[in-house]
Amino acid sequence: MEFRMVDLITKKRDGYALTKEEIHFFIDGYVQGKIPDYQVSALLMAIVFQGMNEEETVNLTSEMLNSGDRLDLTMIKGIKVDKHSTGGVGDKTSLVLGPLVASLGAKLAKMSGRGLGHTGGTLDKMEALPGMRINLSTEEFIKQVNDIGMAIVGQTASLVPADKKLYALRDVTGTVESLPLIASSVMSKKLASGSDAILLDVKFGNGAFMKTKEDAIELAKVMVKIGRALKRDTRAIITDMEQPLGLAIGNALEVKEAIATLKGQGPKDLEDLCVYAGSVMLNEAKIVDSYEEGTKLILEAIHSGKALAKFKEFVIAQGGDVSYVDDVSKFPVAKYITPIISLSEGYLKEINALEIGEGAMKLGAGRATYDDQIDLSAGIVLNKKVGDYVREGDILCYTHTNKEDVKNVQKDIHDAFKLTKEKVQPLRVVHEYIK
Amino acid sequence: MEFRMVDLITKKRDGYALTKEEIHFFIDGYVQGKIPDYQVSALLMAIVFQGMNEEETVNLTSEMLNSGDRLDLTMIKGIKVDKHSTGGVGDKTSLVLGPLVASLGAKLAKMSGRGLGHTGGTLDKMEALPGMRINLSTEEFIKQVNDIGMAIVGQTASLVPADKKLYALRDVTGTVESLPLIASSVMSKKLASGSDAILLDVKFGNGAFMKTKEDAIELAKVMVKIGRALKRDTRAIITDMEQPLGLAIGNALEVKEAIATLKGQGPKDLEDLCVYAGSVMLNEAKIVDSYEEGTKLILEAIHSGKALAKFKEFVIAQGGDVSYVDDVSKFPVAKYITPIISLSEGYLKEINALEIGEGAMKLGAGRATYDDQIDLSAGIVLNKKVGDYVREGDILCYTHTNKEDVKNVQKDIHDAFKLTKEKVQPLRVVHEYIK
Repeated sequence: MEFRMVDLITKKRDGYALTKEEIHFFIDGYVQGKIPDYQVSALLMAIVFQGMNEEETVNLTSEMLNSGDRLDLTMIKGIKVDKHSTGGVGDKTSLVLGPLVASLGAKLAKMSGRGLGHTGGTLDKMEALPGMRINLSTEEFIKQVNDIGMAIVGQTASLVPADKKLYALRDVTGTVESLPLIASSVMSKKLASGSDAILLDVKFGNGAFMKTKEDAIELAKVMVKIGRALKRDTRAIITDMEQPLGLAIGNALEVKEAIATLKGQGPKDLEDLCVYAGSVMLNEAKIVDSYEEGTKLILEAIHSGKALAKFKEFVIAQGGDVSYVDDVSKFPVAKYITPIISLSEGYLKEINALEIGEGAMKLGAGRATYDDQIDLSAGIVLNKKVGDYVREGDILCYTHTNKEDVKNVQKDIHDAFKLTKEKVQPLRVVHEYIK
Repeated sequence: MEFRMVDLITKKRDGYALTKEEIHFFIDGYVQGKIPDYQVSALLMAIVFQGMNEEETVNLTSEMLNSGDRLDLTMIKGIKVDKHSTGGVGDKTSLVLGPLVASLGAKLAKMSGRGLGHTGGTLDKMEALPGMRINLSTEEFIKQVNDIGMAIVGQTASLVPADKKLYALRDVTGTVESLPLIASSVMSKKLASGSDAILLDVKFGNGAFMKTKEDAIELAKVMVKIGRALKRDTRAIITDMEQPLGLAIGNALEVKEAIATLKGQGPKDLEDLCVYAGSVMLNEAKIVDSYEEGTKLILEAIHSGKALAKFKEFVIAQGGDVSYVDDVSKFPVAKYITPIISLSEGYLKEINALEIGEGAMKLGAGRATYDDQIDLSAGIVLNKKVGDYVREGDILCYTHTNKEDVKNVQKDIHDAFKLTKEKVQPLRVVHEYIK
């Protein structure tokens, strides 16, 4: 059947659903360079306004998935579980969860990304450990997962070329904020990287892409449906990003916090999240039948040192200097570590994660553009969390930086802590479980 | 001030108004090739959904107007009036109205276009008169209007380059249907062509761009406001396009009907429209103070032969063979003229103008693409109008064509005439006057 792109655009503009054949024509034509950017951006904007139904979103994901290679992980024995976070400030979960579930028999074959914005991504954080290789060949990747149960590497360029092209276009045409476009982008990448089961950590709050819990639930449900429709055991947890996760924000700082958490000495919210997510992943890997059983195993793995031992195996396998894990004082330390003092008093009701993330970036922890260099030692360490009572003169957090003039950044970081007279409850981290 | 196009897109997407400076950045950057098509098409689609307020629409028109040359008509003595129709089937009004108002002292310096679709545009129709020149130099154009009061020529390429670029993009990105985009496109061209006063004929109905009277009124009001804001006496009439205008559809057929109308022998709806529009234009030209006075003068110009004499002057001035005006049998005649017989009985409630237009095009009267040749003799001549009683076997219309196999086209033309048992009133042509 012959399609014309302009007819697809007007059809979507007028609120009608696109057929599987039309979506194939669009994605295939775009990747092959037959459909120009200017028609695609018009269609994307029409999708921003009119949305896509479940069937369209599944078809879009499936066509994106088929636009490139798919990683074949069948050579890895056992159930491969993958985990994806929609992103937040202080999110070092993958570095904890991977060793946790791998130490209990699950197989984690994870592809991750670099970060743009607040702090680095998981790959950047891994590079705080000298020597860590993030570009393994497919053979090395598969062998490592078979040998030690886990590997985390950079994404192969040949996976989902449609997403790369679409994402670059969305970024400059105001079409990022669309539920079906976000869901298909995430899920096509996850499905292409070949795991059998996927756990999605969908965050909501001022530091997350989804501002409200309702929006996060909606996105999670769509992604779970896509995963199921395309035959993967897909589940999601809805987690809090109204304040940064844990206490550390910044690359080396976060790796140190991940190591502490693997030792059972991490901040409560990060541990809670890892225990919950780990239990679900163990269930997806058919290692446990219940959440309770999973929790028990996970806590054992932490307190027995099994999880930390797995983390070390992982560091060694990917060429990292494992002595840093035993002696975290070896990690680079910033020249200026400054306490930020509260100028007022009250219950801490919010630590604006977006503002904290921007502050960390300005201290050197993140990139504003892909060419920027990350300062591994820079960042922020919180001293208070939502629900704490803060007195005037109390330390809210510490800024870590090698930059000299950061007075304005520090003022903004101070102002990210919002106090109130009324008593405030601590925030729980996991709000919903969607399966 | 530094703008980023992506910020303009998200601003409009989220329903906010763009400032004059932002619209300048967009139009200027696009014409200069600094802003890529893919960002412009995303913005256009956001405008389709979010609209533009009056101030934005005026600013958009003004920036488009300033994107190229403007015709300087100050060398023409007196008030220059222009007329624009949003387009319909059987619309030969310009060929009647021009001589009518020019014969009474108004100055009509009109730029017109070629047609794509049902039949040719005014320029194509003029070419049914052998020798007619449509590409006058600016000097010739101005001299002719000064000498005889009127000229109709093709649009100069250097006027409103922003509209040319935007229109080409809108055409392939599903962004034609937007009130502010339509209004700014029409008005920027009209304003650039330099007349002091403008009469807009905004048509509604199945054969028009605007399907409902309400939409036509809305568009007309916006265009009138734009014209006023940019200091031109702009008015609009809202006219019927639920059936073709007059009886003739097709290029030579329409020129013959225009000549007949100038002799006082035209169809009533076409004469009514020309009398009404002519009266308004005479008022805009400050030749008459009232509609009644204008009507009296117009009818006199028709019945005294003054208007026809002006039409001949116009034909001679632009190099056309004036003998065709005196002897219309000289116009090319189609090989096959076939009556279309009604297969049923009832009051004629609708002659679907869109279907009639498409039929005429298929008979050879119009172009499907800009490269197609028009058959000047082809078209349709109606024998019934809405409100007439039709008996089985009555002639609904005649098809004129040089093509042999047009059975299916003739069947569709037959089916464009919709009958009903209930009595139907004839349609009036002018519904509203907006000033």
